[in-house]
Order: sequence, then structure tokens, then C-alpha cells
Amino acid sequence: MLITETKLIVRYAETDRMGIVHHSNYPIWFEAGRTDFIRKVGLPYSQIEDRGIMLPLLELKCNFKSPANYEDEIIVKTSIKEMTYTRIVFYYEVYKDKQESVLSTGETMHVWTDKNLKPVNLKKFAPEIYKLLCSVT
Amino acid sequence: MLITETKLIVRYAETDRMGIVHHSNYPIWFEAGRTDFIRKVGLPYSQIEDRGIMLPLLELKCNFKSPANYEDEIIVKTSIKEMTYTRIVFYYEVYKDKQESVLSTGETMHVWTDKNLKPVNLKKFAPEIYKLLCSVT
Amino acid sequence: MLITETKLIVRYAETDRMGIVHHSNYPIWFEAGRTDFIRKVGLPYSQIEDRGIMLPLLELKCNFKSPANYEDEIIVKTSIKEMTYTRIVFYYEVYKDKQESVLSTGETMHVWTDKNLKPVNLKKFAPEIYKLLCSVT
Amino acid sequence: MLITETKLIVRYAETDRMGIVHHSNYPIWFEAGRTDFIRKVGLPYSQIEDRGIMLPLLELKCNFKSPANYEDEIIVKTSIKEMTYTRIVFYYEVYKDKQESVLSTGETMHVWTDKNLKPVNLKKFAPEIYKLLCSVT
Repeated sequence: MLITETKLIVRYAETDRMGIVHHSNYPIWFEAGRTDFIRKVGLPYSQIEDRGIMLPLLELKCNFKSPANYEDEIIVKTSIKEMTYTRIVFYYEVYKDKQESVLSTGETMHVWTDKNLKPVNLKKFAPEIYKLLCSVT
Repeated sequence: MLITETKLIVRYAETDRMGIVHHSNYPIWFEAGRTDFIRKVGLPYSQIEDRGIMLPLLELKCNFKSPANYEDEIIVKTSIKEMTYTRIVFYYEVYKDKQESVLSTGETMHVWTDKNLKPVNLKKFAPEIYKLLCSVT
Repeated sequence: MLITETKLIVRYAETDRMGIVHHSNYPIWFEAGRTDFIRKVGLPYSQIEDRGIMLPLLELKCNFKSPANYEDEIIVKTSIKEMTYTRIVFYYEVYKDKQESVLSTGETMHVWTDKNLKPVNLKKFAPEIYKLLCSVT
Repeated sequence: MLITETKLIVRYAETDRMGIVHHSNYPIWFEAGRTDFIRKVGLPYSQIEDRGIMLPLLELKCNFKSPANYEDEIIVKTSIKEMTYTRIVFYYEVYKDKQESVLSTGETMHVWTDKNLKPVNLKKFAPEIYKLLCSVT
């Protein structure tokens, strides 16, 4: 199973008046991790979309264990948790760089669709992408 | 049980290159619903924070059933799903105005803390807020 | 000259660790004002785009005089400052509701383009939209 | 004069339904550049704030010449354009990695303040920070 690591630095705009990173940024960080994961597998997600394949979300879960702060160096670890012909579930862990305790974990369930957001069977629609993703699951 | 309705209009900046609202905006809409719910109960959340009481997230769940689009008039329905001395769970449903089918549902679990993000027992720390929220649960 | 007023309530996610609204939200508020202005003129911007007409930004200016805070009720006043066959400049003033002093002023210069972001002469491309906007300038 | 380079990868959430990066993200990228600039000078901005010194915006200007797209590798070049005892102006240029043409330029004018957002004379309030920033202007 492939686990990729994506580095981010916390932006000022990502903090809120509690002084910590606002929770709405974690789904965006997960997405940065997912983009990086797919790119490292060898198929930039922008190219997947250019072929008319979309991957909208069905479900998002996120647990917050410890806050992140402005200028923190963040690592997002991304992997595939489940994969079927029609769906894919990514799993994420967010760390501060060089620290062992996890700040946040999360998962996103997606459905493969065509350009019009109509679900497709990825194995039929784009067998080589399906195969490639299976090989790193 | 109180259910409040909060109106929003989808902003251009909330859309993504799929042409629909990016999923990271739903937690922000939930929060707008939560802010409005608490204000309608009679205690603006900004005033709660000014008293040194914080309500950071422990958990976020979100289901996406149908996309929202630019300029859509959105209704967020907010209610309290669970409440203990230390935690509170809000539940949300997102609709397009004048339509029956739900676009998205979600929930957020929060912990009551002091200014330093240390958990507190709300019933002891701010009994009148605890009582007020219980009365609408 | 038409000046429209658009109401917003400051979202928690829009604040930063300084405790005030992060400046990157003002361009988004300007856009909400612009969307509302165009809708009130009688041509929802989403419909303009559906006809293949885009209005990307060339220039953004923003002055910050006084901060906005969480839960503030905000009024964005929007008007057209200049209009030519190919460009349009909107002007914005941001107020707290029921207060006289302005929080922020700004302007955005846009170019009319087709779907491929190629500039067009609006008077030729969509004369009725050109005429309508001239009538409120 | 110091010019720093900060790398970013365009996030999906930063795109809009025009298919390009929404303009409200450029001020956030400028800020990432500014954070990186100050850190490279040797005083992490989070530490400046921890000392009770704030740097809110007075003015933002931004020109958009060419759009950025999802997954683009972006370089933000940051430098100090002007500096007085009370104010500082940063200048930014945004490029796609390995390309010569600039996507966007911008500047932000800031005022040095104390914790309560009251303007201060930086040379008196924090002479060593003033001196350090002068040395890279």
C-alpha cells in the first residue's frame, strides 16, 4: 500500500480568531494530499479531469485531535483505504513535521463520474487508471 | 427541539472547476447555521467567546447527495442532536430554497473549553448557557 | 447611477488569529455585492455565464480603514464606476449595518470575454446586456 | 534588496467555475510569500506576533495578467518596496514555475501596530526588527 507525504506550511488566512487553524481547511489539505498522491502514482489529476473523468465527494469524515498553528510545517499522509469499480475511499493523517502525535485523521469517499457528474464504472471507462490505482491500494 | 433555518446565496468563490460548490464550503455553511442557531437561542456566539468559552471541533461528518451551484439560494437547517456536560453535537441539512430534496447532511461534535482550549464542564462553568441549550435540544 | 446594498453576516471562518476578518475575504464580499448588483439589474450573472460570457478580473484595489469582526452585519454598497465596450469597473463600500463610517472601499476592473477567456466587445457580442448596464451606470 | 521565492502548488479548492484560480487566492499567496520572506530574514512572523506586534493591511493592489490553473507550480517573488517607521509596503510577482511571463503582480501596504491594533513607531517599539528589515530593503 502506497502512503505519500505532502508538505504544507500553515497560512495566516487559514487561522481563525481562536488562534488555530480553522477546521474547514483540513478538507483542503486532504485534497492537496490526494492531488499529490495521484500525481505520484503517475497520473496528474488535472489530466484525469481533462479526459472527462471527475471524482466528486460523497462523504467526508474528519477527527480533530490537536490544533495546528500559523507557520507550522504540516505533513499530510495519504493512502487509499478502499476501492471498487465505482468508488474510492482515501484516508489521511495530518502531522506537524518531526512530531509523532497526529493532529487530525480523515477520510473522503468519492464516486467516479463523467463530465456531467453521472457515475461511471471506472474499470470499463478508464481501465488503465483503475489498474494503476489498484496497484497502490 | 428547535430547528433554525439560515439563508445563504452561493458565492462565485465557493465554486470550483467542476462548476459546483467545493465541498470545503459545507463546513463553513454549517458554521453559519450554528452561529445563527445560537444567536436565535439568545446568546450570540461572539459573546460566549468574549466570556472565555470556546467550542472547538472534535469531529466533522458530511454527506453530499446533490451539488449546489453559483447563485443558488441555500437553506441550512440546524438543530442540536446530542448534548452532555462537556460536548455538543449539531446536525445540519442543506437545501436549495423551495426544493424538497436535501443537498447535504452533516454533523459536528464540539467540546466546551476555556480560553486555553482546556475542556470544561459547561454545567459548572456556565450553568445558564447549559440550561438554555438543553431547553432547545 | 444605481447603488445596491447587499447584506452579509461575518462568518467565523472569515476571521484570523488577529481576531478580525482576514483581508482576503473583502474581494469575496465585493463579488457577492457585484453578483447581487447584476441580479438586481435583471440579469443573473450565472445566466450571463451560461450564454458564454465571462468577466474575469484585470485589477483589484482595496483599502482597509477599520476592521470587521465575527457576527457583524455587513452592508456592501456596489455601483459601476466606469464602463467601455470591453471593460467594466465596479466600486464598493463596506459598512457595518447602522454605522456611518466605512470599513473598506475597493474597486475591481474586469474584461468581457468569451468562454475561452478571449476578450470581446460587449456592445457587439451582447448588445442588450451592454445597454442594460449602461442604463444603471 | 532581498527577493525571496516561495513555491506553491495550486489547490483544487482555489479554482472556480471559470476553470482558473479565483482571484481571492492571490492575496493569500502574497501572504504566503510575505511569511516566507520574513522567516528567511530570520524573524518568523508568528514570533513577531507573539511579541505583541501586528501588521494589518491598509491597502491591497493586484493586477491579473494571465490565469493560473489547478496543479500549476507557482513561484511568488517577494520584496520590500518601501519602509518607514510606521509602515511597510511589500511587492509581489507571481509566476508559473519555469516560465518567464508573470501571471500577476501586487502590493500590500501595512501598518505596524500593537496587540490592540493601535499604530506604533517600529523603530522605537522594536528597533532590532526595524533595523533587520531596513537591511533587506
